[in-house]
Amino acid sequence: MATTESLNQEIAQQNTLCNDLRQQNAEASLVEEAKKKLGELKKSLGALNKAAAGGKETKKKERLLLKTAKGTRDYGPGEMFCREHVERIVKDCFTKFGGACLDTPVFERKDVLTDKYGEDAKLIFDLMDQGGEQLALRYDHTVPLARYLAMTGATNTQSKLWQVGKVYRRDSPVMSKGRMREFSQADFDITGTWDAMIPDAEIISLVNTILSKLDVGEFTIKINHRQILDGLFEVCGVPKDKFRTISSAVDKLDKLPWLEVKKEMTEEKGLDPAVADKIGEYVKHKGGVELLDTLLSDQALMANPSAKAGLENMGLLFKLLKAYKALDRISFDMSLARGLDYYTGIIYEAIVEGSAPPGFKQANALASSSTDPAAVTAEPPKSRPAKKAKQGEDAEEEVDESQVGVGSIAGGGRYDNLVGMFTAAAAGEGKKTFGTPCVGVSIGLDRIFAIVWPKWVEKGMRSKATMVYVMSAGDGLLEERIELVHELREAGLNADFLAKNKPKLPAQFTAGEREEAPFAIILGGDELKEGLVTVKEQRWELKDGKKSKIESADKGVKVNRAELIQWIKSTATFAEWQSGKFV
Amino acid sequence: MATTESLNQEIAQQNTLCNDLRQQNAEASLVEEAKKKLGELKKSLGALNKAAAGGKETKKKERLLLKTAKGTRDYGPGEMFCREHVERIVKDCFTKFGGACLDTPVFERKDVLTDKYGEDAKLIFDLMDQGGEQLALRYDHTVPLARYLAMTGATNTQSKLWQVGKVYRRDSPVMSKGRMREFSQADFDITGTWDAMIPDAEIISLVNTILSKLDVGEFTIKINHRQILDGLFEVCGVPKDKFRTISSAVDKLDKLPWLEVKKEMTEEKGLDPAVADKIGEYVKHKGGVELLDTLLSDQALMANPSAKAGLENMGLLFKLLKAYKALDRISFDMSLARGLDYYTGIIYEAIVEGSAPPGFKQANALASSSTDPAAVTAEPPKSRPAKKAKQGEDAEEEVDESQVGVGSIAGGGRYDNLVGMFTAAAAGEGKKTFGTPCVGVSIGLDRIFAIVWPKWVEKGMRSKATMVYVMSAGDGLLEERIELVHELREAGLNADFLAKNKPKLPAQFTAGEREEAPFAIILGGDELKEGLVTVKEQRWELKDGKKSKIESADKGVKVNRAELIQWIKSTATFAEWQSGKFV
Repeated sequence: MATTESLNQEIAQQNTLCNDLRQQNAEASLVEEAKKKLGELKKSLGALNKAAAGGKETKKKERLLLKTAKGTRDYGPGEMFCREHVERIVKDCFTKFGGACLDTPVFERKDVLTDKYGEDAKLIFDLMDQGGEQLALRYDHTVPLARYLAMTGATNTQSKLWQVGKVYRRDSPVMSKGRMREFSQADFDITGTWDAMIPDAEIISLVNTILSKLDVGEFTIKINHRQILDGLFEVCGVPKDKFRTISSAVDKLDKLPWLEVKKEMTEEKGLDPAVADKIGEYVKHKGGVELLDTLLSDQALMANPSAKAGLENMGLLFKLLKAYKALDRISFDMSLARGLDYYTGIIYEAIVEGSAPPGFKQANALASSSTDPAAVTAEPPKSRPAKKAKQGEDAEEEVDESQVGVGSIAGGGRYDNLVGMFTAAAAGEGKKTFGTPCVGVSIGLDRIFAIVWPKWVEKGMRSKATMVYVMSAGDGLLEERIELVHELREAGLNADFLAKNKPKLPAQFTAGEREEAPFAIILGGDELKEGLVTVKEQRWELKDGKKSKIESADKGVKVNRAELIQWIKSTATFAEWQSGKFV
Repeated sequence: MATTESLNQEIAQQNTLCNDLRQQNAEASLVEEAKKKLGELKKSLGALNKAAAGGKETKKKERLLLKTAKGTRDYGPGEMFCREHVERIVKDCFTKFGGACLDTPVFERKDVLTDKYGEDAKLIFDLMDQGGEQLALRYDHTVPLARYLAMTGATNTQSKLWQVGKVYRRDSPVMSKGRMREFSQADFDITGTWDAMIPDAEIISLVNTILSKLDVGEFTIKINHRQILDGLFEVCGVPKDKFRTISSAVDKLDKLPWLEVKKEMTEEKGLDPAVADKIGEYVKHKGGVELLDTLLSDQALMANPSAKAGLENMGLLFKLLKAYKALDRISFDMSLARGLDYYTGIIYEAIVEGSAPPGFKQANALASSSTDPAAVTAEPPKSRPAKKAKQGEDAEEEVDESQVGVGSIAGGGRYDNLVGMFTAAAAGEGKKTFGTPCVGVSIGLDRIFAIVWPKWVEKGMRSKATMVYVMSAGDGLLEERIELVHELREAGLNADFLAKNKPKLPAQFTAGEREEAPFAIILGGDELKEGLVTVKEQRWELKDGKKSKIESADKGVKVNRAELIQWIKSTATFAEWQSGKFV
């Protein structure tokens, strides 16, 4: 028996048929027959619905919520044109620096991710156990890379690997700032044993190169060293088992004033207030080579082997960064600690002006000028601590966006033990296994997009790369248009046309202008017979914040149809596009 | 108190410290102190382990399974170099055809995917409900596209959209043939109302263009039309409510002999055997324009409005495909039905020689020469039917790979009602809503990779794009090497060097040769002072299936350091690379 569903489907099919028949100017009798059938089907549906309504179960079907999952979004054509542009620059730089691509699955066996992210483990997206393995979406690219290196250890002693793809966190999303549950990261890692600080300097030069090429505005790469931090904790008197937890308190100094951080250290984490104050003295420092010199003459620090090794590392790094001409972007920042536990050496984070959370600049200004860390109170940003507390529960409410900045746009560091953790866990206790020292960086593509995209909109950037739009002034000339479009495409030119049998010329111009195609080619029946086509070059300008075509009295030039492609390729516009200038 | 974990971490840190100190030639006393501490930590760990072993809980920690999830895999550098190459060609063609990129999230709200995939719904990967929405990984790009179009309907009346990304199916994986649980698809869709068959022909021309540019070998694009199929079902006497189920039986004709398909139709699906035989007569046909002419003169078919409309559509399509110069790849194949329910018009599938399952050619040869469909028995392939039956249960066992081909490498068709299904479901019953007719194609990137990759391996294709390798013949010259590498990269050249302080020259040559870098630049202290560097051009050849450097007595040329970049850019090798010939 017919159901509502099957009838609806039949009606849709019959509808399509009627339209097709009409469009093809089919015989009147066929059209009539098809229409009659459509009418009958609709009647049947009506009867069926009526019958159903008369029955007992009249409950309405629940309406579909037409939306993407929380914390995710679609990126439409204009946005993707910009995102692809950003991604291309990043990938080009990865290749330029000798990187090779690695691709890992979007989900991993759950135990691969277990015990890698500390408190943030609760943010992992688990897949439903459907009678197979326990799986979870990847949280970052670093852990899958380490798993890969542990699996291929014998053949992967030294390499430069990059990954670009999406990662997943069940965090509270702040869409407008580029903080999402699904977001894109571009990672570059140098693996294996090399001489001290050379790969580390490569990575920092890479970050500098990429961010310079992207339109993110002024940026700073903050650097610090875990051995320096550990050394100063030891010197200040922090018990060894509190290093990591105190470190993660220090890491909050870019978002919280010192007094709040001190409170966390002493009240939450039980640190002696005098010890906390000593730390406060150190972590307020930031600067360049001169800061390094100051610290190298700090006898207390230099007596500590860890701090000494870290500072010497840092000296080496500065020397190499000078050769890379990257020094002017660098800020040696003793308050940078990075959240993750697995870093063992150099750590870094790139921030841009626009990415600082509100109050950031003020707090930092105080931090670097005041000598009393207790004075660095500034105004405590209101929402962050409150939000933090709530995260443990459900994380379903949206965060007040005005209170949160884009955050750092790139970050990373050296992690020499992560691969070894995998090989050891796989080998079982007591077995001797290998490890692979690594240093790498993650670039936050969504955060960069959140900075770059508004500028693109402001500048009225094009959103498609169509170069040639083929039109007909005559009687449709559909096949002639298709033949030319096909030829142009075969010659490597982005070409399009209006998919209508006999479109009017103005409609075709409108379509070509919507794509900002620089070349309009007009076919005319008589001209074609003479072997000629008309080419009109079109240009656009930004006027009062609006993009519009520059009007011109130019009627176009007649070009020999057989020489058209050569003609286009010899124009200045084509050369411009070839060099990537059209973006 | 110290735990095994915290001690392990401390040991690892201390280890790093010791290595660093040694590497930096630190004072002996510092090294000694660090080593002593390391020894103490190890002792503590030993004691702790002993204590634990003496206690009650001596159960061994379970060993980690170091692998990727079932049906997924990593792609390493060589493979990704090939995959990126394939993807670049596909994306370039998408752009050339006027496409704009769309990106949707990797997971959707579960109800968006519900009721779209028929029997295959059981293959959907669900996410665990972690106190929020019910989510599932996307199964294809078509349904998310339709969801997107329904959401943005007002602004998306006519567009060409492409998507490249991974989709997920809990199917039985056959890794070696490119059938995975996570796999990459590249989709191109033309949406909105246009004149008949023009967008459909565009898509087929696109598939033809892409497959011609990829090294997949000879291929055929099979086409058919749902309205022709429906018409012939009606003419043969199939009850309307059996159209889709009989259609899906017909779709198996590329894998099963006619007798098996007939059995499914009659025994499983209750079709009158005489009706089945009539269908068998029709669906054995395949050919070009001449088949169309035969069918257009079939009075029974032409009296059916659906078949007539479909055949007239097909005539139009052939005319347009001629203008696209695509006819020689086309096979009008009446047995092509495609699995999914939502197609409403033209359908197509691209197959390559290598992608046919075993027995495919034989069965087809018989199908097109014999006049009695009952004769098309051939040898029934053994594993497919058995496997199908098992899929319903668990789908956990691997399939016998030798029995399955790569399958079609691209497929698609017209689906005019899918967007309307979303808008209707969102509006609730009885409300008037809009729909958007669409036609599109999905290209199976993994299947293409499964065909292309063995050819790359055979040809010894390079796997990295490093162009210049900078070495030092002198005393390390680390900073000089870095400065030059930095300059080369800034000039857009892919450059690298060995990350060692004082590497030996042969080690550097070996490293540069591993990357097949065509330019080796050697820095020497004295030469540098004169402003000169030595450049050696290197070439490789495939000899007896092995790639090796062409030995040459060439000692290299001395080039002015200041003119080096200009010099490289004027070489024939550089020009070759620019034109993409190095791949």
